[in-house]
Amino acid sequence: MTTNSYMTHLECSKCGTVHDADTLQQLCRECAAPLLVRYDLQAAAAHLKKEDLLTRPASLWRYKELLPVREEQNIVSFGEGMTPIYTAPRSGAQAGVPNLYIKDEGILPTGTFKARGAAVGVSKALEVGVKTLGMPTNGNAGGAWALYAARAGIQSYIVMPENAPTITRNETAISGADLFLVNGVISDAGKIVGKAVAENGWYDASTLKEPYRIEGKKTMGYEIAEQFNWDVPDVILYPTGGGVGLIAIYKALLELQEMGWIGDKMPRLVSVQASGCAPIVKAWQEGKKESEFWPDSETIAFGVNVPKALGDFLVLEAVYSTNGCAIAIDDADTLRAQQTLANLDGAFICPEGASLYAAVEQLKRQGWLKAEEKVLMLNTGAGLKYPNTVQINPPLLQPGDDLLQ
Amino acid sequence: MTTNSYMTHLECSKCGTVHDADTLQQLCRECAAPLLVRYDLQAAAAHLKKEDLLTRPASLWRYKELLPVREEQNIVSFGEGMTPIYTAPRSGAQAGVPNLYIKDEGILPTGTFKARGAAVGVSKALEVGVKTLGMPTNGNAGGAWALYAARAGIQSYIVMPENAPTITRNETAISGADLFLVNGVISDAGKIVGKAVAENGWYDASTLKEPYRIEGKKTMGYEIAEQFNWDVPDVILYPTGGGVGLIAIYKALLELQEMGWIGDKMPRLVSVQASGCAPIVKAWQEGKKESEFWPDSETIAFGVNVPKALGDFLVLEAVYSTNGCAIAIDDADTLRAQQTLANLDGAFICPEGASLYAAVEQLKRQGWLKAEEKVLMLNTGAGLKYPNTVQINPPLLQPGDDLLQ
Repeated sequence: MTTNSYMTHLECSKCGTVHDADTLQQLCRECAAPLLVRYDLQAAAAHLKKEDLLTRPASLWRYKELLPVREEQNIVSFGEGMTPIYTAPRSGAQAGVPNLYIKDEGILPTGTFKARGAAVGVSKALEVGVKTLGMPTNGNAGGAWALYAARAGIQSYIVMPENAPTITRNETAISGADLFLVNGVISDAGKIVGKAVAENGWYDASTLKEPYRIEGKKTMGYEIAEQFNWDVPDVILYPTGGGVGLIAIYKALLELQEMGWIGDKMPRLVSVQASGCAPIVKAWQEGKKESEFWPDSETIAFGVNVPKALGDFLVLEAVYSTNGCAIAIDDADTLRAQQTLANLDGAFICPEGASLYAAVEQLKRQGWLKAEEKVLMLNTGAGLKYPNTVQINPPLLQPGDDLLQ
Repeated sequence: MTTNSYMTHLECSKCGTVHDADTLQQLCRECAAPLLVRYDLQAAAAHLKKEDLLTRPASLWRYKELLPVREEQNIVSFGEGMTPIYTAPRSGAQAGVPNLYIKDEGILPTGTFKARGAAVGVSKALEVGVKTLGMPTNGNAGGAWALYAARAGIQSYIVMPENAPTITRNETAISGADLFLVNGVISDAGKIVGKAVAENGWYDASTLKEPYRIEGKKTMGYEIAEQFNWDVPDVILYPTGGGVGLIAIYKALLELQEMGWIGDKMPRLVSVQASGCAPIVKAWQEGKKESEFWPDSETIAFGVNVPKALGDFLVLEAVYSTNGCAIAIDDADTLRAQQTLANLDGAFICPEGASLYAAVEQLKRQGWLKAEEKVLMLNTGAGLKYPNTVQINPPLLQPGDDLLQ
């Protein structure tokens, strides 16, 4: 059965060259930049109504007409998507931003937003006939892609830094993927994968080297608009490693504007990085359109340890176009923020997500955020995938002991 | 704003004594058995239509009229519920049960089904004025209750076995709860909590010692019916520790029958335990109505390491009444099942949930399950909370190495 996808073609994000959308594609064959999926949004808007969505299942596939998969039978899914948005009233009040919201991507299969990219990316890979894929990862994407690939019957080769969160090794390995560690950072993993992909003719599932992962992540933007009743918050903060999440939300909101489903208002998009790996922030501060490789990068927010993102120019474009900003957060502030959110509002989120709260505090102090604004933090994953960020030493009792001595 | 709850009273599960539903209650004051929440289901069915649910948010609060919280403002929520049901086609085919489904409770805040009980339990605790609660736990319930309690502004004292999954310590501690470990099993933790609760006048949030946790878990049953389009599968398997999940699903289905929302067909309910802690299975094999304390219990499926459940008689009643059964699974079979589900269908679920697949294999071999039956496995949590169940040793590369030598 058809999904009624309105996808028309792929378009190079740099040179605009058009590519076929239903055959295996990687980067632009002209200029090696990422390809973006384009749709006939006028036709989509003419046939699909917002109200049609109301009775659909609460997964990202509710937007199937605006996704690249053509046939329902190729959808590889665990029912992912429509993650909740909840308030953080006490943390918000403490930071002086009472209308503070968290969209919680920890509540997804594999516990991070990476499930979205994997769901759509693997589904389309299956549709165009991929049998084997390779990818470098900081852990979470690898776990997600490996499990979705297993469900699709696609073999995967995953390379991650040795000090990526160990739980992500489990997810990857138990799927039957071939897992390798590298004594280095994600760019080292990327080089190893690049070579293997070229030599073996595999599909390269690296960030933005295939065009469909971003389409999965785009659904975060659709959901935000739908969950805010086809309005948008004033500000959206996003932790930025490879940057696809932020690029994708921006793409989604532009698409919804073109469809007339939301108005002209665009949230200011904030790219949050770690002080130990902040190439986008540095480029933004210098008013540049691209970032430079960040040497010796290091942070406990491991997902954002990306020294040079292929899509850096798209992240910066989204930030500049929306009058957003970019800000770097020290690991100590991130850990404190993680504790504050759990203590005050019961939200145990990952360090990448928690860094956003430290950014909210700083941007409010600087006057960049106003007290009355609606501010949405996009938490990318569950706190429980990062056991090492919580240091505790609870008392040990013996059977029959009293609780309070 | 009112929730329009149709709750009328609490009823003792053993002696039938009626208790007030809007004041702080623990066990039956007559016979110390668990209390069950009762509703005016005729009135609910007269005013609420199945179709009303279609456009409600995808959380367990969509069933608010059938839950015990009276006022919307007391709802303590992270948007939990409406977890996906997906198929496990390859694992199902391999076991000879092609219509095999997983309802995945890993896709909830805190990564397990315990979030449901905590959401409704903490909300109602807030509504009846609780300031401090105490509870023993095998880990996951403690993490969930601690975080929901933090969100509600309720102080909590949590006691868990020293060898409970370490990630659950993080969740509990980061919430600001007072966490204690005990060199023993959950019944040892329960004795310590019982004493502290009595001495300090705290709310006892132990399994079935407060009446509302079961109401949260009941929503699994409502969701199953709604997701199967107001039909039910032929068989539901549930990993059984304290047993509340299974009791609650049975309660939900009986309520839906009384409302006329589902027909007479009741799924056969299967209680799955670990061979190292199988008191319910032993009682069922002996045709008894209650279980005996299981000494020296031990299993890697830590959540079901409950030597004697307070609600054992209710679990057994649900199994007997539905022509279900009870079965114990060896840890080795559970680990193999966990691997199979991830390998064949990409589902990385917790050992408690994985044990259900080993049960499906055995029950099919015994002829108890038929090939054409719709079989639902209720996975209680995410695999990633149990890093120790996956043993791997991936190769370590150096930057510049070749992937395949």
